Order: sequence, then structure tokens, then C-alpha cells
Amino acid sequence: MAHKAQVAMTEVENERNPSYLTPNHPMLFVRSCSFAAPTMTPSVSPCLRGRFRRSIVAIIYDSIVKKIRVRLGKNSYDVMIANGLLSRAGREINRLLPGKASRVFVVTSPTVRRHWGEALERSLTKARMNYQVLEMNDGEPAKRLDTVERLAEQLVAAQADRKSLVVALGGGVVGDCAGFLAAIFLRGIPVIQVPTTLLAQVDASIGGKTGVNLSAGKNLIGAFHQPRAVLVDPQVLSTLPAREFRAGLFESLKCGVIRDRALFDFMVRKVRPILARDRRALERVISDSIVVKAAVVSADEKESDLRRILNFGHTIGHALEAATGYSEFLHGEAVGWGMAAAAAIAGSSGFCSPETTMQITNAIEAYGPLPPVRSASGEIVGRLSADKKTVAGAVHFVLPIKIGKVTIASDVPPDVIRQSVEQIRTHA
Amino acid sequence: MAHKAQVAMTEVENERNPSYLTPNHPMLFVRSCSFAAPTMTPSVSPCLRGRFRRSIVAIIYDSIVKKIRVRLGKNSYDVMIANGLLSRAGREINRLLPGKASRVFVVTSPTVRRHWGEALERSLTKARMNYQVLEMNDGEPAKRLDTVERLAEQLVAAQADRKSLVVALGGGVVGDCAGFLAAIFLRGIPVIQVPTTLLAQVDASIGGKTGVNLSAGKNLIGAFHQPRAVLVDPQVLSTLPAREFRAGLFESLKCGVIRDRALFDFMVRKVRPILARDRRALERVISDSIVVKAAVVSADEKESDLRRILNFGHTIGHALEAATGYSEFLHGEAVGWGMAAAAAIAGSSGFCSPETTMQITNAIEAYGPLPPVRSASGEIVGRLSADKKTVAGAVHFVLPIKIGKVTIASDVPPDVIRQSVEQIRTHA
Repeated sequence: MAHKAQVAMTEVENERNPSYLTPNHPMLFVRSCSFAAPTMTPSVSPCLRGRFRRSIVAIIYDSIVKKIRVRLGKNSYDVMIANGLLSRAGREINRLLPGKASRVFVVTSPTVRRHWGEALERSLTKARMNYQVLEMNDGEPAKRLDTVERLAEQLVAAQADRKSLVVALGGGVVGDCAGFLAAIFLRGIPVIQVPTTLLAQVDASIGGKTGVNLSAGKNLIGAFHQPRAVLVDPQVLSTLPAREFRAGLFESLKCGVIRDRALFDFMVRKVRPILARDRRALERVISDSIVVKAAVVSADEKESDLRRILNFGHTIGHALEAATGYSEFLHGEAVGWGMAAAAAIAGSSGFCSPETTMQITNAIEAYGPLPPVRSASGEIVGRLSADKKTVAGAVHFVLPIKIGKVTIASDVPPDVIRQSVEQIRTHA
Repeated sequence: MAHKAQVAMTEVENERNPSYLTPNHPMLFVRSCSFAAPTMTPSVSPCLRGRFRRSIVAIIYDSIVKKIRVRLGKNSYDVMIANGLLSRAGREINRLLPGKASRVFVVTSPTVRRHWGEALERSLTKARMNYQVLEMNDGEPAKRLDTVERLAEQLVAAQADRKSLVVALGGGVVGDCAGFLAAIFLRGIPVIQVPTTLLAQVDASIGGKTGVNLSAGKNLIGAFHQPRAVLVDPQVLSTLPAREFRAGLFESLKCGVIRDRALFDFMVRKVRPILARDRRALERVISDSIVVKAAVVSADEKESDLRRILNFGHTIGHALEAATGYSEFLHGEAVGWGMAAAAAIAGSSGFCSPETTMQITNAIEAYGPLPPVRSASGEIVGRLSADKKTVAGAVHFVLPIKIGKVTIASDVPPDVIRQSVEQIRTHA
């Protein structure tokens, strides 16, 4: 009973996960205000009395499992990570609201809304917030200026003002569009990101990059607009299709390679529990990835130098996406191939040892399979110079020196690039 | 001959203003490096020899007549004002370029290009700059996201990169669109504003406000994106239609009312020379207005408080524009009516004396006539709450206390507002 004093039974919500429940087995949610929550279930059970005697017990952390600060002066904010966070998002959002009279506009996609809209809406209602839901389509083709314009017209129709708040509930496309909407509506209103894909949780939602595509390429239009907060609830990943889930893991792998050897090693060791979405393994992967991203962004908001290391795997990755019309690869998958190519370049140019190249390649494979690369090498290489990171024709590569450390090279010979692309093509 | 030593004849350009010239009367441009230039012609003439003996002499200031600093930390920049500045814009732009390999994209309208495109292009060529001209339509209807998107696609096609520079050559619409294009292209590239209307010179080009309209209202989409410099050449106003020229003067009058009594008095005293575009009178109006705008913007970049005083006349002005579908009034004209309405509100609410109201009204009339206000009062008042400056339903008015000093009121009774609108309607 050591933990008994830490437990406060404050709330019973039988409407959650109704399929588990019968009148004889109500579900009891126990809120805990300490990190000890996961170990508490055995301590709680003997305390149950009356109609809760036969309850199924679920622990809701009342604490934030992890709160990671993105330090950007007056634009600083927290990334909060907690299982079940979505169901108390209303409270967190309320705390962060720009003003009493503020209104909340949730931008989401029909799919995400079906799975998680109700949970968020319920928590907003509980926090007595004046909100409205705006829908946009998911998927790259929707990530265009006309989507943003349509949403903006809806904001005006609903009389949104400068103190209104946008809440982006969705994956990368929703986050990028809704973030950009917030960046340019009335020259900028606040946004809170609530990412619902692994890729968005560990990467896209953090750092303030927002924007849309042009017909000529991805993310060519955009703005830096830091969110007021990022609310990460790993539970929402339960409805994520397997392919999307795996694609997101490549961004985590990237974080390991560029700055966190321990994360990389953990991911190599724990492939099965991670792919099985084991809660604890997943929480570690998510929070460690976010720590890397937050640290890099904090040190360099606008990608002048350090932040470019986050583009590991993205040089060839973007080219691959462009060459295939953004239809064959999920972004994370293209980054997977891009990391393999970058590792090959680094190995063949002597930036890293053959062992490091091999380690990276093996890790990528372990989280595969990736869809095969079918584009011609020339087609892929040709796309490199159209990338927005290209300055005056020079293509930059982020190359590993060892696991946890990378460098930036802008003078990789065309032959070496072509060879690396050839390698991922034949590998596929 | 006191000035003789200050004069350096460095350049002869016979291609300028060819209608004045004959082989026997070549035009001689004398560059001067001091502010004394305008008084120098008599000193220069006796020095002329050889084939220049019979020359028509024109002085080109080699100095910047006035350089006004907009102080915004690392986003600081100069507004340079000089007659003939356009013909050496290339040199100034070169000096400000972000990098050796940079390319310049001039965004302009067909009309402005016809008048001033060649002068700018020639100076860019002379400065050996790699440039390209992109055209967009003038006029409010063109100020939309799809115009910006089209320009962005052209930038990509021309392989613009992060070190490319946008030069906005035109009035407010071109400046706002091209500035917004620069704000969001690759998440932001530099822009230099070269305003060609009076309104753009004294107001729109300074302060970093960029953006476009939605179908629901003006400037509802946008970004703060400070230019690297603003190049103001009063000479380009020579081709400006009279109505547009007068419309711009209302923004100068506004600067006088909100912060510069001397400018206001000067404009009241010098109505005729100013309307006749007398060079010296105009230069003073332009540079004094810019001093006001630059000072306010420097003190408050993002319109949290002080910057709102620049909206004097804009509350009713915007409503008037919206009520007439942006087709009956030029922006400056609507601001003229808006100032008259605000002066009426201030007078009837006791914020200022009846004399102050009268002075302002008279000055507006002196620069009139303004097109009559035909919309119903209710229609105009109804538009107030849709303004983007409205926060949580409260409409803010900038009201004069005396000439040179204003205050902000957010609790003007609806009756008083309606009465002021009624007044400008019957006045018309």
C-alpha cells in the first residue's frame, strides 16, 4: 500500500472504451498525479469497494509523462507527451489560450475526425470552450494554397479574430496546412498542434515549419510559425495504418543517427516491440526523437546551419518523392531510402566507416520493407537541383560520420551521388 | 564659382528624355555628391566646354536626398528617397544583395513596366545583375492567393533559390503581392520595395505588411515581412494619374494628424504646389510622411498598440471600401472619408475641439473632391465588425485629440458611429 496516498479517485467515466464494459464490470479510471502511475495498478485494486469492486482499472496519468521545451525566446513552447492526453486536451488548450474571449477552430480531416474528433470535442466541451470543427482532405494533393484559402474563408465566415486559435488535429498534411493557415490568417494567429501520426508526432509538428506544395514541388510555399504547444498522445497511434506507422519510424531512426546513439541502439534492439506498438517502447522512441528535434530546433530556428542536420535522408528522399509524383512513397519511406543513399555516399567517400554504413542500412531494413525504387537514376538525380534547400546550384548532403554524429557536405561528386542512387535501386 | 570644386562630371547619358535633345543640344547629366545639387546649375553652366557648351544641364543627385532608418533590430532597413533613384537602383540593389550568386526577380505590372520598367532594367544591366521580370495585373482583383501562386510557380521554373531577391516595382497591389510572395516563397526570401505610387511611397511599402485579399475582405491573408530596403524615387510619380496622386496625399495628411503638426500645416499651406507636384514641396511631403511611418513602425513592428495609430481613418475607410465592393473608392480616398468620419466622432464625443474637427475636414476637402458616399449607413456600419482589427467584437477607432496627437477608443457608442457616417454621406 505504499502508493495508496498518491492515488486520488476523482472521476469515473463509463463512456470510454464501451466495448470492454458491462454493468457488472464498470471501468474505473484512476487519475494519478505522479510518474508512478504505471506501477500503481496493483496498489489500487485492493482499495476498490462497493460497485467498483469488480471494476477494470485503467490508470490515467494526470501528470504529463514528459514535457519537452522548445526554446525559441518569446516563441518558446512545450511539447507535452502523455497517453490519454487527447481526452484532457481541452484543459491544456484552455490554459494556453490567448484570451478569455478566444474561440477555437479545430482543423482536421474526415478520417482523423472519425477516430479522434469526438475525444477532442468532448474535452473541449468539458473545458467549456467555444469551438468549431473545419474539415480538409488528407493526403499530399490537398496540401495546396486553395485548401488554405478555403479554410480562411470559413474562418472569416465564422467571425474568427486575431485572438482565435487554430488547433491542428491530424497528420503532417493537416498540421502543415492548418499551421500555415494560422501563420497567414490576419497576418498570424496562434496554433496548437495535436499530431495524430507518428511522423507528425516526432517531426512535422515540432519546429514551426508550415506550408503547402506548388505543382512544381513540395513545401515550396510556407512560413515559420511556431505553435503555442504540441500535444502528443501516443494512444492515437492505435488507429494508424501499419504502413504509415512504419514510415514514421524512419524519422525516429534519423534522430538516432544524427544525434542520439542510444536511441538508435534502442531501436535496433527493440524492433519487434516497437513494430508491435508496445506502449513503453513506443513512448521512449517518441520522446527521445522529440528531444532530438526540440534540441536542434532550439539551437537554430530557421535552418541556417545546425537545423539542416534534420535533413539527413531528405536530399535524395525529396528527389525520390518528386520523381514519383509523390504517389509511390510515404514521406518517411522516401526518407528511409534517402538515409540508405546518404549512408552509402558517406561510406564510399570515407566520411564514415563501412560498418557505420552497414549499421544504418540494416536498421532501415529492419523497419522495412520499403516500396522498391523504380525511377531511373537520372530522373532522381535530376530532381536534386530543384530542391528548395539548393542554393546557387549546390546540393547539400547530410552525411553520417558515426552513429549519433553527422556533417554537411556540399561537394559530393555527381558520380558518387549517382552510384548511391543506383545502389538503392538495385537493393530494391 | 563657389560650388565648382563640388561638381564632378562623370557621366553623359544622351538616351534620357530623348524628346528634349538634338545633336546640337545633348543633355548633360552632372552627378553631384552633395545636397547642394539643386542650386548648382548656375555654377555648372560656365564650366561647360567643347561639345557640351550648348548642353541642357540636368543635375543628378549622387547623394541620397534622405535616408530614413526603420529600426527593427536585425530586420532594420533604410528608406532611401532621391529624385532619379530608379536609374541607379541597380547599384543600390547590388549593394544590398544577399550573396554573389543571387538573382533578381522584378515583379511589376504591365502599366508600370511600360513607364518605368526600362529605367530599372537598364540600371540592373549596368550593375551587371542577373535579373528577370515577372508581370502581374494591377488592381485589387489581382490581389489574391492565385496571383501569388502563379508568380511562385514562375520563380520555381526560373530556378529561384533562397538567395534570390524579389524587387517589387509598382503600387500597393504589386508591393503587397510581391512582398507576400517573398514572405512565403521557400518560407521567405528577401524583397526590396520600389514603390511607384504616392500611397505606396509614403505608406504601403514601409513596415513589412504584405498580403492578399479573400473574397470576404481585404488583406485578410498576409505576413509581416520587412523589406531589405525601400527605394523611393519621387520622379516616378510624374506618370501617376491625378486621381491616384491625390488619393495618396490623404495618407500623408493622416501622418500629419497623427504625429506631425508641421507636416499638416505645410500641407494646408501648400495645397497648390503639392497638387501641381512641385518637386520640392512633394519631396518634403513624401519624406516627412515616411519619417512618421518609419518612427511608428520602428517603435512597434507588429501593431500591438502604437502602430494602430496608423489606422487613423481606416476603420470607417475599410468599411466603406467593403460596402462598395472595392470598386468606387481608391484606398486613399476611402481613408479620406474615414478621417472625416473619425474627426466627426472625436469632435462630437469631446476627444477634440470643434476647431480641430474643422481643420481636418477642411484639409481633406482641399485635397478633394472625394467620390460621394452612396452606400446606406447601415451597410457601412455593418462592415465594421468584419474588419480584421476587430478583436472579440470590439471596434477600435483612432481619434484625434489635436493635430499631431491621437488616441485609441474602443467604446464609441453605435449611435455616434452611425451619426458620423451619416455626416460623410450628406457631406458628399
